[in-house]
Amino acid sequence: MMRTRPLKVALLGCGVVGSEVARIMTTHADDLAARIGAPVELAGVAVRRPDKVREGIPAELITTDATALVKRGDLDVVVEVIGGIEPARSLITTAFEHGASVVSANKALLAQDGAALHAAAEEHGRDLYYEAAVAGAIPLIRPLRESLAGDKVNRVLGIVNGTTNFILDKMDTTGAGYQEALDEATALGYAEADPTADVEGFDAAAKAAILAGIAFHTRVRLDDVYREGMTEVTAADFASAKEMGCTIKLLAICERAEDGASVTARVHPAMIPLSHPLASVRGAYNAVFVESDASGQLMFYGPGAGGAPTASAVLGDLVAVCRNRLAGATGPGESAYAALPVSPMGEVVTRYHISLDVADKPGVLAQVATVFAEHGVSIDTVRQQGKDGEASLVVVTHRASDAALGGTVEALRKLDTVRGVASIMRVEGE
Amino acid sequence: MMRTRPLKVALLGCGVVGSEVARIMTTHADDLAARIGAPVELAGVAVRRPDKVREGIPAELITTDATALVKRGDLDVVVEVIGGIEPARSLITTAFEHGASVVSANKALLAQDGAALHAAAEEHGRDLYYEAAVAGAIPLIRPLRESLAGDKVNRVLGIVNGTTNFILDKMDTTGAGYQEALDEATALGYAEADPTADVEGFDAAAKAAILAGIAFHTRVRLDDVYREGMTEVTAADFASAKEMGCTIKLLAICERAEDGASVTARVHPAMIPLSHPLASVRGAYNAVFVESDASGQLMFYGPGAGGAPTASAVLGDLVAVCRNRLAGATGPGESAYAALPVSPMGEVVTRYHISLDVADKPGVLAQVATVFAEHGVSIDTVRQQGKDGEASLVVVTHRASDAALGGTVEALRKLDTVRGVASIMRVEGE
Repeated sequence: MMRTRPLKVALLGCGVVGSEVARIMTTHADDLAARIGAPVELAGVAVRRPDKVREGIPAELITTDATALVKRGDLDVVVEVIGGIEPARSLITTAFEHGASVVSANKALLAQDGAALHAAAEEHGRDLYYEAAVAGAIPLIRPLRESLAGDKVNRVLGIVNGTTNFILDKMDTTGAGYQEALDEATALGYAEADPTADVEGFDAAAKAAILAGIAFHTRVRLDDVYREGMTEVTAADFASAKEMGCTIKLLAICERAEDGASVTARVHPAMIPLSHPLASVRGAYNAVFVESDASGQLMFYGPGAGGAPTASAVLGDLVAVCRNRLAGATGPGESAYAALPVSPMGEVVTRYHISLDVADKPGVLAQVATVFAEHGVSIDTVRQQGKDGEASLVVVTHRASDAALGGTVEALRKLDTVRGVASIMRVEGE
Repeated sequence: MMRTRPLKVALLGCGVVGSEVARIMTTHADDLAARIGAPVELAGVAVRRPDKVREGIPAELITTDATALVKRGDLDVVVEVIGGIEPARSLITTAFEHGASVVSANKALLAQDGAALHAAAEEHGRDLYYEAAVAGAIPLIRPLRESLAGDKVNRVLGIVNGTTNFILDKMDTTGAGYQEALDEATALGYAEADPTADVEGFDAAAKAAILAGIAFHTRVRLDDVYREGMTEVTAADFASAKEMGCTIKLLAICERAEDGASVTARVHPAMIPLSHPLASVRGAYNAVFVESDASGQLMFYGPGAGGAPTASAVLGDLVAVCRNRLAGATGPGESAYAALPVSPMGEVVTRYHISLDVADKPGVLAQVATVFAEHGVSIDTVRQQGKDGEASLVVVTHRASDAALGGTVEALRKLDTVRGVASIMRVEGE
C-alpha cells in the first residue's frame, strides 16, 4: 500500500553533510520509500553559492532564497544542515509556521534555543528531530529519549568531540606534546584551521547541554555548562595518568547530584581508568557512556563526525518524521517536566590528581597535608619524587567538591614551600 | 495537559523481569506518567504460582488465568515476560484480538514466529515491541529499526549471550579450560543448571535471527541461522588466538553477501583481533557491532541480561507503545520488504585458523598446501612446530567459502600424514 503523493523535503545547506543527504535520498530512494510508506521528493535546496557544481542535484532545485523555500507551504520536512545560530533559527521557526517538520544537525542552536524551538514545533503540531546534533551517526538521542524512557539516568560520560579525542589519543600513544598532536590532526583534516571550538571545549559543551537536557528531563542551556579546554594537557600529565593506570580524555559529564535534587553539566579533560570502556575509544571516534538505575552501564560508540555518518543520522530522523507525517502524529517532543536546578561547578563532587612543585626539605608534606585537611579535602595517596634539588608531590584526593578543591589549591599556592601547581586533573569513571 | 483516564497494563509473568517491571511501574509512576502523558495502571498480573508473596503487588491483581486477563477488552498494553513458545504465542495473539498492544521480551518466540505476530499486530492496528528480546537493556532494536532507517546495514557482529562471554573471558584471562570456567559461571549464577541453551548457541541464534531480520528488512527465521556452540573451545585455542593477536568470542554474525543479493546469519566461536572493539567486552556484558554504508562502524554495549536491565528495556517499549496509544498511531511494524534470500552456511565467506597434528617428516607441508590449493582455498600464513616426534601445523587462510573450507578439511583428514584436525576456528572482524 504505497501512497502515491510523495513527501516533499527541502534541504537548507548543501555542504559536506547536505550533499551526502541529497545523494542518499537519490540513490536509496526505493529503500526510503519502502521504509517510510511513501516516496520522498527533494523539493528544493537552499545554498549560498549557487554556481558551485552539485553532482546529482537538478539545477532547478537550487535556490539562494532559503526563506522563500521554507515559506512555500507545501513542504513536509525541512532538513537544516547550515549550522550556527542565524539564519538557521529563523528558518526553522518559519518552517514550523508554514507546516513543515524539521530535522536539524545544529548542536549550537539546539543547545542555545532548544526550548523555544521545541515550543514552536509543538505549537504547530510538528516534529523537531536532531539526532545528528550529538555524536554524528551514533544513535544517542533516540535511545536516551525513548529506549531509556522507563529508566532513571544518573550520569552521562561522553567523548563527544572527535578532533580532541584524536589529539589526546595521539599524545597518549606516541608521547607527543599538544602542539605536535594538533599539527598532525590539522594536517590529516581532523582539526580545522581555527581549532578553538574543538580544543577549548565549546563544541562538546553544546552537546553536553543537549544530552543533559534529555537525560534529566530538564532544560540545560549552554551557559549552564562548565567548560575547560584541553590545550593545557601535557605529555607529563599522560605520564602521571599512566602511573595511575589511567588515560586522559576530554569528557562531557552530565550528572544527577547524589540527593537527586539537582544536576550538573561540564566539559573538561579528565583521567579515566584504562579498564573503563571509554578509555579504549581511539582516534576520532566518539562514545557515550550512560549509567542508569535499571540498565546499569550502557555505551554507544561510533564515528562522531563526517559527512556520511552525520547524513545517516539525519536520514534516520527524516524517515521517522516522514512516518509521523503519514500517521498524522508527532514523536516525543521536549521533556522538561523534571525541571531540576542546574548546580554550578563548585558543587560538583569528584576526585582530583594534583601535581605540585615543592621545595625539597623536611616538613613540606606535613604543610601540604594540613592545607588539604583544613579545606575538608581528604587525601587518598601521595607520591613524593625528588629531582635536582626540587621535589614534586603528586596528591590524589578522595571525593570532594570543586569548591573545596579550589580553596585548597588557592591556599597551596600561598605556601612558601610550594613553588607551583603543575597540574590539576579530575579523575572520573571509577 | 494530563489525561485523567489511566492506560491499563497487564503483566504476563512475574519472575525476575516481571517483578522488576511491576516495581518500577509503582515506584516511578509519576515519571512514567509525565513521559507518557497519562498515568499507567497495573490492571492485572498473570502468574503460575498465586501463593508466592509478591511485594508491592496488590493480591487482587494476581490471577492464574492469563487467557481471561488478556480477553478483558479494556487493556491498552499487555507485557509478556513468560518466555517460551506456548502459551506466550496464544496469549499475545489473543491480546491483539482484544485490542491491546504488546511488549514482549520473548526472543525464542519472536525468532520463530515474528512474522505471524507482526501480521496479527498490524491486522488489529496495534504495536508489537520487543527491545528486551535482544541484548537486554542495550537499545538495539530501536536504533537498528529507526536510527539507521536511512542507512544500509551490511554486517552485524554481536556478543549477545552473557553466559558464554563470561566463560570465554574467564578462559582468556585465567587460562582455565572450558569445564572449569563453566563451573565458575554456574557457581556465580551466570550459567543455569542446564547451560545448553547458552553454551550450544541456541539463545544467541534466536537473537541473530531477530537482528538479521531488522538489519536487512528480510524475514530470517531461527531455522535459517547456522549454529555452533562453544563447548569445544580449548585453552590451546586461546593460546593460538593470542599468537595471532586475537581473542575468542561466541559471535552472532549477520551479513549481507558482497553482491548484496542475499544474507546469512550464523552463531559460532570466532577469533577476533584484540584491536576490535568487541574484543574488550568483558564478563557477562553484551555488545553489538554494526557496520553500515553511511555510519561506518557503530557499537552498542551494556548488560545483556538480568532483571533490572531487561525491565528497563521493557519499560522503554511500554512508554513508546503507550504514547502511540494516546496519539492513536502505531510505531514501525515489521519491515521485510527487501525479502532477500537467506543463504546456507556453505556460502559464507570468511578466514579460517586451522590446527593440524601431522607427522614430523619432509613433504608434509607440500602435501597439505596442495590440498588447500586443489579446493581453491588460498593460504595466508603457515606455522610449523615440532613436538616429541610429532608436529603441528597452523594454517591461516585468506577469505574462502565455508563449503570450500569444508571440502579442504575433509580431504586433509584423508591424508596419511595428517594425524588429526585439532581445531578449526573462523577469524572475524578484521
